[in-house]
Order: sequence, then C-alpha cells, then structure tokens
Amino acid sequence: MQEYSNEETLDPQDWRAVRELGHRMVDDMMNYLQTIREQPAWRPIPQAVKENLHQPLPLAPQGDEKSYQDFLENVLPYPHGNIHPRYWGFVNGTGSALGMLSEMLAATVNPNCGGANHSAVYVEQQVLDWCKEMLGYAPEASGILVSGGSMANLMGLAIARNTQLEFDIRNNGVQSVPGMMTVYCSSEAHSSVQKAVELLGLGSKALRKIPVDRHYRLDLASLEKTLSEDRQAGHVPFCIVGNAGTVNTGAIDPLEALADICQREKLWFHVDGAFGALAALAPEMRSQLAGMQRGDSLAFDLHKWMYLPYEAGCLLVKNKPAHEKAFAVVPTYLAPHDRGLMAGPPWFANYGLQLSRGFRALKIWLAFKSYGIDKFRRLIHQNILQARYLAQLAEASPELELAAPVPLNIVCFRFISPRLDEAQLNQINRELMMELHERGIAVPTSTFLQGKYVLRVAITNHRSRREDFEVLVRESIRIGKELLQRM
Amino acid sequence: MQEYSNEETLDPQDWRAVRELGHRMVDDMMNYLQTIREQPAWRPIPQAVKENLHQPLPLAPQGDEKSYQDFLENVLPYPHGNIHPRYWGFVNGTGSALGMLSEMLAATVNPNCGGANHSAVYVEQQVLDWCKEMLGYAPEASGILVSGGSMANLMGLAIARNTQLEFDIRNNGVQSVPGMMTVYCSSEAHSSVQKAVELLGLGSKALRKIPVDRHYRLDLASLEKTLSEDRQAGHVPFCIVGNAGTVNTGAIDPLEALADICQREKLWFHVDGAFGALAALAPEMRSQLAGMQRGDSLAFDLHKWMYLPYEAGCLLVKNKPAHEKAFAVVPTYLAPHDRGLMAGPPWFANYGLQLSRGFRALKIWLAFKSYGIDKFRRLIHQNILQARYLAQLAEASPELELAAPVPLNIVCFRFISPRLDEAQLNQINRELMMELHERGIAVPTSTFLQGKYVLRVAITNHRSRREDFEVLVRESIRIGKELLQRM
Repeated sequence: MQEYSNEETLDPQDWRAVRELGHRMVDDMMNYLQTIREQPAWRPIPQAVKENLHQPLPLAPQGDEKSYQDFLENVLPYPHGNIHPRYWGFVNGTGSALGMLSEMLAATVNPNCGGANHSAVYVEQQVLDWCKEMLGYAPEASGILVSGGSMANLMGLAIARNTQLEFDIRNNGVQSVPGMMTVYCSSEAHSSVQKAVELLGLGSKALRKIPVDRHYRLDLASLEKTLSEDRQAGHVPFCIVGNAGTVNTGAIDPLEALADICQREKLWFHVDGAFGALAALAPEMRSQLAGMQRGDSLAFDLHKWMYLPYEAGCLLVKNKPAHEKAFAVVPTYLAPHDRGLMAGPPWFANYGLQLSRGFRALKIWLAFKSYGIDKFRRLIHQNILQARYLAQLAEASPELELAAPVPLNIVCFRFISPRLDEAQLNQINRELMMELHERGIAVPTSTFLQGKYVLRVAITNHRSRREDFEVLVRESIRIGKELLQRM
Repeated sequence: MQEYSNEETLDPQDWRAVRELGHRMVDDMMNYLQTIREQPAWRPIPQAVKENLHQPLPLAPQGDEKSYQDFLENVLPYPHGNIHPRYWGFVNGTGSALGMLSEMLAATVNPNCGGANHSAVYVEQQVLDWCKEMLGYAPEASGILVSGGSMANLMGLAIARNTQLEFDIRNNGVQSVPGMMTVYCSSEAHSSVQKAVELLGLGSKALRKIPVDRHYRLDLASLEKTLSEDRQAGHVPFCIVGNAGTVNTGAIDPLEALADICQREKLWFHVDGAFGALAALAPEMRSQLAGMQRGDSLAFDLHKWMYLPYEAGCLLVKNKPAHEKAFAVVPTYLAPHDRGLMAGPPWFANYGLQLSRGFRALKIWLAFKSYGIDKFRRLIHQNILQARYLAQLAEASPELELAAPVPLNIVCFRFISPRLDEAQLNQINRELMMELHERGIAVPTSTFLQGKYVLRVAITNHRSRREDFEVLVRESIRIGKELLQRM
C-alpha cells in the first residue's frame, strides 16, 4: 500500500473546516443580499484593490480561508450592481437568494449536459417544455439552453442559413450559393445579429438594416421595398429578424406582419426576444407580442426578465429536424448505446455548438417550481408599470425630457435646459449619468437616440420599488441643476 | 404610500428560513461529496423519477423547501457521474467542494462580465494573465474565458478566418474570397473543429482531415502534400489545427513542426488543447508539448484537467488586435465613458460572441489561490501516472488488450478472447461497458479505433486512486468472462 500513500486529491483533508466555511459564506451572502439596499448602487474600485487583482501566478497554496478573505475584500464590495434595487443599466437581471443557492447545487452535481443518461438532461428537457408552454410553442418544438441571447441569435440564424436553401451549406459552404444571402432586421436590432451574420460568413453587408418608424419599430414598407430590390438584384434573402423589445427603447416590431411576409416569401422568421419575449407573461402585453409564437426560432434570456443568475439563455425552434440537421455531428466516442450512461434521450450537443455544457437548467427548474409562473407574471407587470410611472414623472418634470415612447420596460430621458444647445445637452447628460454612478445613487446607463445622449433605464429588477424611481428623478434634477450652474 | 404596499419581490419574506435552507444545503452537499466513493459510479433513472421530471408548467408557488426536496429525490441521486472516483468517461472534470462554493459566491455578485467597471472583469483579466504565464504566452497576448473548448475552437478559427487574408470577410463574407478557404487538422481532431468550419460558412469539405500515424498523430508528409495540392488547385489555405491531446487516445500532434509549417506558409496556427494543454504543467510532458506556445491561438478547458465545475473554457490569442478586430461591435448604448460603471478596461464583449457573460473567472481565481498551481502540477502528473499504471495492468492481463499507445491520460483497451471474431469482440465489449455502468462499478466510455470497439478511460479526476484502476481491470475481466460464458 506504500505506493498509494502519496496520492493526493482536491478533497479537503478537513471536511469540517470547509463545511464551516460554507456556512459562513451562506451567512455572509444572505446578509449581503438582505442589506443590499443600504449599499451604494455602484462604487469605484480603489487603486489598491486593482493591484490586489493583478498578482503573479500563485504557485503555493494559500488555503480556502485566505482566498475567501481576498474575495470579501476585493471582489464583493465592487459589483457590477445589478443586484441593487436602483440598478437599471443595459439589460441585466437581478439574481435571487434561491438562484444563488441553485448554482451551488448545480456545481455539486456538476454534470456535463451535452447529453447522456442522467437526471440533468431530463431537467433541461422539462425546463424547455415549460418555456414552450409559456411562450406559445407546441410541445413538438425543439429548444436548447444557451449562454444567452447572443448565442441564441447566432444559432437561430445558423439554422436558418443551413435549412432554408437547396444548397448543402454545411458541406459546401456559403461560397456555393449563387448570390448574396441576405438577412433583414431593423436598424434597432441587437449588435449580436450583426455579429452572427459576420460569423456565419455572410458578411455584414448582407445584413439589411431597415429604417424604423417614430416608435422605433421596423418600417414594413421599407422592408418590402428592400426585399424586392434584393430579389431583383439576384440576392438570396433567407431570414427576417423581428425584435420583441429592442435594447434601446423596448420597441416591439410588427411581428404578425413580419410573420406574414416570411410565410409569403418563404423566409425563416427569427424573433429576438432577449428580454421582451417574457413580457408575454403579462396579459396586457400579449396583443403587442402577437406573432412572436409564429417565429421559426425565438431567442430569449432567463437571466434578464426572469431575474435568474447568469448564464441562462434559451433558443426555441419550431422545426425539430431542422434544428438537429443544422448542428449534429456524432463522433465515434459518442456512439449511442441502449443502456448505461451512454444511453438516454437525444444529445443536446447535437442541437448546438457546445459539447460540454453546464447545468443551466437547475436554477430555472427550481425558480419556476418555488416561485410559480404567476409570480413572474406579476413581477414583469410590476416592472412595466414602474416604467410607465417613471415616464410620467419625467414628463411631469420641466427639467426632464422623455426621449422615446415607453412600450415596455425601458425609459429614455434626459435633463434639459433652454440655456443649452444640443452639444451641451449631450455633455451635461453624460456628466449626469457618471455622477449618478459615482455618488452611488442609481445606475441607469445611456444611449444615443437620433444623436441625442439620453439616460436609459431598463427595468428587469425585482428589488426596485416606485420610490426608487422617485429618487432617480429627484436626484437627476438636483445634479443636473448643479452641473448647469457649473457650466 | 398605499400604492407601494402591493409591490412584491423575489426576496424572501422570511430571510431566516432561506438562510437555514442554505445551511442545510451546504451540509447535504458536503455529505454528498464526502461520501461519494460509497455511492455507485452510475445508476439508471427509475421511470417514476422520469415522470417527476415531466410535469406541467408550475403556475402556483410550491416554495423553496418543496423544490429542494424534489431536487434531493429526483436529481441528486442520478448524476452524470464525473464527481465519482471511478468515473473516467468522455473528458469531464470532477469539480470540488471549493468549486461548488465558488459558484454560489459568483451567483450572489451575479455580474455581467461583458465589460464595464467592476471587480469581476479585473478578476477575469487576472485569471487570463495567469493562464498566459502558465502556458507560455506573453503578457501582451489576449484571451477570454468561454463556455468550453468547442467555443474556444470556433473563436480561434473565426479569428483566423477574419485576419489571415486581404479580404474584409466581416463585411464582405466568405463569398468574396476567390477560392475555397481550407483548414487542416488530423483525422483525430475534435468534432467541434468540423462544427466550427461549418458554422463559419466554409463548408466541411474545406476541412482537410489529414491521416494519422500509428500513434494517432497527424502525418506531416500527408499534410505537406495536401497543402501543396490545394494551393495548386487555387484553394486558399489559411489555418492548421494541431491537437494537444486528441479525445480518442490523447495523442499529441507534432506541434513544433506544425508551427514551422504555419510560419513558412503564412497560416494561422490554432492549437486545440482542450485537456492536453494543461499537461504542460507536468514537467515530464513539456518536451512533447513543445510548440504549443507558438500557437496563434490556443483553446483549453479548466473544467477538464483543472477539475473545476462547468463551465470554464479559455481561448488565448497571441495577437491582441487580431482578436479584437475579429469580433468588436460597439453599439451606441455601450459607448465608453471616463468614469462610473461605463468606464473600465476594454470590454470582453469585443473579444467574443457573448455580450452578457457570467462570472466564470471567480472559481478559477479562488482555486488557483487556494490550491496553488503546484498542486495542479502534482495532480496532473498523478493522473498521467495512473494512466500508465492502467496501461500496464491491461498489458499484463491476457484477457485484455491495450488498444492504443498511452501518451497522456487516456487508456483504450478491450476484453479479448481467441474464441471471438472481431464482430463478436465489438459486441462483448459494448455489453461489458454497459454492465460496468449498470452495476455501478466504474464509468469508462467507449470509442472505435480502426473499427474496433474499445473501452476508453480518460483520467481527469482528482478523486481516483490506483486501487480504482485495479477494480476496473479486475471487474472488466470478471464481467467479460461472465459474458463470454453466456455467448
């Protein structure tokens, strides 16, 4: 037995110590979440902390305790901020106490969800079935959990590219297509659509960015015109991307009309519903989102408006064989078996780009069961009401200007003053946004709408209350005036 | 205040209850890991459990407690198995107690690591710097954490495609290239390379699968011949993929020679080192892996041979501008600022496909610090020794046949008998593998080598001991003989 004596492991020698550390972490993390409202919405990282995060490769062990201390001192106090009740930057979900515990459970089981015969793949199938039911897709539809909306958009377009045409593109490549393969979306579509078109080898010039109307929705007449011109020029249109909630303003494209055009023109209809798709849970949004369920593919994120921790994106695909045919490659070491681990339902790896895949499904499964979907309905509805409330507050304030319609959960506004020209307005609002962050008051982010720099508030936060938006408006006006005086 | 009273949140009404649940989970999960050796290596999922995992969409809440019970009863007992000391299927890491706690911490902070000014992006930079140092890349090199090797391979090839040529492929697409853009790899390369070539619009026929020698290493003479023929045919070679550890047998391609050819032929050199790259930590493997650090890009997984929980892949790229130029798209709502959350170091989103990105870096950062790299050196070395030990055991057993050389951590063997022909040998070994699973003894998986079905043992497991391989050999022989009698 001599030869075994020097074998080692990452398992702790003292399980009691790591167990106690785990308990301390649970307490610390719960305290952190419970008191997050008392923290600033954001704070800058001190130079000393940046230096602590820039150290040589650690060769010797420093132990769990010391590493955890380093985390408590250097990482935890300087978060992105999306856990905070007054965070409304970009489009980021909030997470939750249950979500954070779910990730611990998932990392304990630590399965590879690429496929095979184990509970996690059944949990993922379950979650996908629930997503289909929730968003109006038939049980026969296909789906897969992915890292997020960018990946879901890429995969939707990849399936579209690989299946819409009589060319065997997987084998022959895009060069075998006699004409430019064109994709259509609005000028407000997410940058990941462009990234996808580029990655797929189509070239961004093949992405036709159609102008929007004054509600930032894709203009149908322009689309029809461009489509017809492209056909006449010998191009090969194959896909339209509709927005269910644009990232700038939350605009919802005329999805029903887009679905009709796709049907008539035999184009793949991909819907980017990164956050907006989930608004379909709120009854008042259903008519605006009508047509979404006609998408050949639908991309959305559960780490956005389902408030789940990163990463939890989803792609639904109406035509299961098309989905599989776009990606499946079965190497010899994955040959299916009748029994044992190598049996089991169809491999998720054949429906996507990942072979090794984490257990994203668990946090979704636990959240749906624990909270129930009706809870999410109410929270999403609440966020939409909060957006309308903020819009009203902005409109009612002479110092503020509402910069775009508020069809969903995104509010764009800016500080205004008759003393300032457009360039100065851009400057003062930029400064205003940075001050709101630096003073820890709130985290809106910004965008440009028709050349105007505006503060942008995207509400996918279950911790926000109406009073938080009152704080934002009050402080924006106060700081805006301060800045005005200094100019 | 009336209007606020009905606002709700996912935060628990009773923090004490969820805190207690968290403590119970820590205890349960620690018990589970501590006693995993006493569990079967795999067990089938009963039909009743499958039905429990196939339920209607839950509209009403059932609460955290009940959901956790459902997890304990339906999910936890039927894992993939890679946490078990006698699991050596596919190539899956093991996870660890610290890893599982790290994921809880990451999900509490729950940052979006697409970019911006917060601690998590500095942690990721730190981890990338460590990976560069560890694997012989210069500090000026670029890198990004990704979901896994498939994504890292895809991105490496995407950068190669977008930068090696005088065509503006991001804008003009692959169709603008006057010739087929060819990629070279061995016939043993990972399926994700083919998936990547297909996704990039090049077509799998553009992937030249070069034959291997009897050690399953790419044959250089065949490569040179194919390259030269392709040039003469007017094709456009742009990339060679070298394997640092093939998935079937752990073969390491002649990387130094491939780097020389790439240099001479002005081709991008991508190294797929999914698990094998990390063998460079073991001093005895360094000479075999020489040349790996000359890769223009290198893909590897920390969730494999660093035993970290899913998902933790990494791509390193020698030329930082090339990396950024392949992917960067900056929409107006992400315009950089001088201060506040929208300031900060360059956005990771510009170096990859994801805009929303989880906090993969934390578990790596904590593991490197807690355990120290020297610990990983020893564990990787230990796994290599264990592979050699298993190979010796197989060679010493007349009932077993070692089916391929064992250059790294993968051992392929099969049960043999002079009474059986090749078809029967395939059949009995297939049955043997399923029996090993079903009886919960051990989890090898399988592959085909030159038409022969073989059991395949890939050792990236910090819990395995020499005695576990003795069990595998003993039981394989015992069950093989049992099956032989029945035939």
